[in-house]
Amino acid sequence: MNEFELIQRYFTRHAANAVLGVGDDAAIVRPTAHHDLHISTDMLVQGQHFFPDVSPSALGHKTLAVNLSDMAAMGATPCWAVLSLALPQADKNWISEFSDGFFRLAEEHGLSVIGGDTTCGPLTLSVTIFGETPRGQALRRDAAQAGDDIWVSGSLGLAALAIKQRLHHDFSIPDNVMAECTQQLERPTPRVALGRSLLGLAHSAIDISDGLMADLGHILVRSNVGADIWFENIPTHPWLAKNRRDFAEIITAGGDDYELCFTAPHSARSKITKLSEELSCTLTRVGRIKIDKSTRLIDRLEQPVALSNNGYIHF
Amino acid sequence: MNEFELIQRYFTRHAANAVLGVGDDAAIVRPTAHHDLHISTDMLVQGQHFFPDVSPSALGHKTLAVNLSDMAAMGATPCWAVLSLALPQADKNWISEFSDGFFRLAEEHGLSVIGGDTTCGPLTLSVTIFGETPRGQALRRDAAQAGDDIWVSGSLGLAALAIKQRLHHDFSIPDNVMAECTQQLERPTPRVALGRSLLGLAHSAIDISDGLMADLGHILVRSNVGADIWFENIPTHPWLAKNRRDFAEIITAGGDDYELCFTAPHSARSKITKLSEELSCTLTRVGRIKIDKSTRLIDRLEQPVALSNNGYIHF
Repeated sequence: MNEFELIQRYFTRHAANAVLGVGDDAAIVRPTAHHDLHISTDMLVQGQHFFPDVSPSALGHKTLAVNLSDMAAMGATPCWAVLSLALPQADKNWISEFSDGFFRLAEEHGLSVIGGDTTCGPLTLSVTIFGETPRGQALRRDAAQAGDDIWVSGSLGLAALAIKQRLHHDFSIPDNVMAECTQQLERPTPRVALGRSLLGLAHSAIDISDGLMADLGHILVRSNVGADIWFENIPTHPWLAKNRRDFAEIITAGGDDYELCFTAPHSARSKITKLSEELSCTLTRVGRIKIDKSTRLIDRLEQPVALSNNGYIHF
Repeated sequence: MNEFELIQRYFTRHAANAVLGVGDDAAIVRPTAHHDLHISTDMLVQGQHFFPDVSPSALGHKTLAVNLSDMAAMGATPCWAVLSLALPQADKNWISEFSDGFFRLAEEHGLSVIGGDTTCGPLTLSVTIFGETPRGQALRRDAAQAGDDIWVSGSLGLAALAIKQRLHHDFSIPDNVMAECTQQLERPTPRVALGRSLLGLAHSAIDISDGLMADLGHILVRSNVGADIWFENIPTHPWLAKNRRDFAEIITAGGDDYELCFTAPHSARSKITKLSEELSCTLTRVGRIKIDKSTRLIDRLEQPVALSNNGYIHF
């Protein structure tokens, strides 16, 4: 199977919302008038972002999910994506399963794949994704305001626990807990509907890919503010919560969560609580933005919780 | 140097034409009203697309050039790009030189880098590029018409000769010829101004990355037509032209040329010749589109020229 047959067979699906999809030197789209176009890109490398034995279908899901999560963090509606793959060989089964996982999630979100590239090389996946918001309404990192509540969706630390256990076998984790953690690692749910619903409600947002402390840190730096984060409030799995102190780093700095962290004014609380019910998505207040630029992770006695690692570093 | 410092130091430059550049979950741009947005992506892998000893500056140039070439082939004006890199280590000198080569070419074309991703991994480069044309005017592959002239820019075969010589040392090539071929391989000139000028003149276009026969083949299939290609007319280096028959495959199917192949009606000939002078870019008529779907590479006696390979295959 050569490159063109490969693209044709597994990656060419009808792109209803494009003028011209896969098969020319470029795809052609017509963005919506009076909207902002959002563009984000993520590259996944074997051994760095996923284990070599991950199922191709889960990898296809995750490759798109991490990119959808960036759209969610902007409050953008995802529209199009391009996908590039370097593959060690043209293994039809692998490619077919990967493509199933990828396109299943794409279809859930009405996203069209309009282009890409395939080449021979060490397994590497690169997606660029496009989304839209009404002009000027995006949830940016630089718009948090002193007094804002800090909110987090879902539960943090599950994916990081799955990685740590796979690498070090440090804990005796019940099978059902490990299964949930692995599911969260391999098939995260991008919070696209949540992000979109936060337009006009939240001031700022980010997705938690490198751990809450590191990613919230980006909001704080760019918004020129500080924060108190309430350690006991951070939502996590009940099994982790039982020994919360022992898992402090996994919960607050573990990474790979793909939940949203956002800040919103006090006045938005009841609407956000209602949204949580409507979307069946847990939303938890975990702290507050301060004008003072210090950042504290504190317990209920206002004592600092010590961490040796504040987030995932790629080098 | 961690990932964020790396991005900040070498890949964050002011993006005058973006609402929001590097540093949030997504970049934000506002495409021009009444224009089509063109999107293309290319991934480059060491050993597959470039030699391990290529200079980082040349690699930076080429990484962007192959993407600009896709915009040229659509007649699009390049506007923005995102760049993802997997790097085996954070080598500051390498990154600095790569970034210089990349940004020098970007600035020549008024292109802004608005986002990207860096990660640790086998050297892999992935660019997604964006450009615009007035609505409905793009040069597509599916619009060639019977009777069209087939044109080619520049000279073909130089890059392929450089690769072949590097791998096999088959020929005794004069140093100055080899230098020209290496320059063409490592620092191709994307034909952006030519592509843009062909809007309204040419019917269809493609860039020659996999060899003339293979890439013209894409136009023919999608336009549902055939072609006669006149072997002796295909422009190449004088050193190759001296033994044209011996180099038939390198000239017609070598790949990595990044010249444009386009088709245009007879009535456009004088304008195209004038364009060639204005842009100081050789443009040569190399054949004709036929209603009959056969494709022939023929010599001046109308005899077929045999080739064992019709284009570069990635697997």
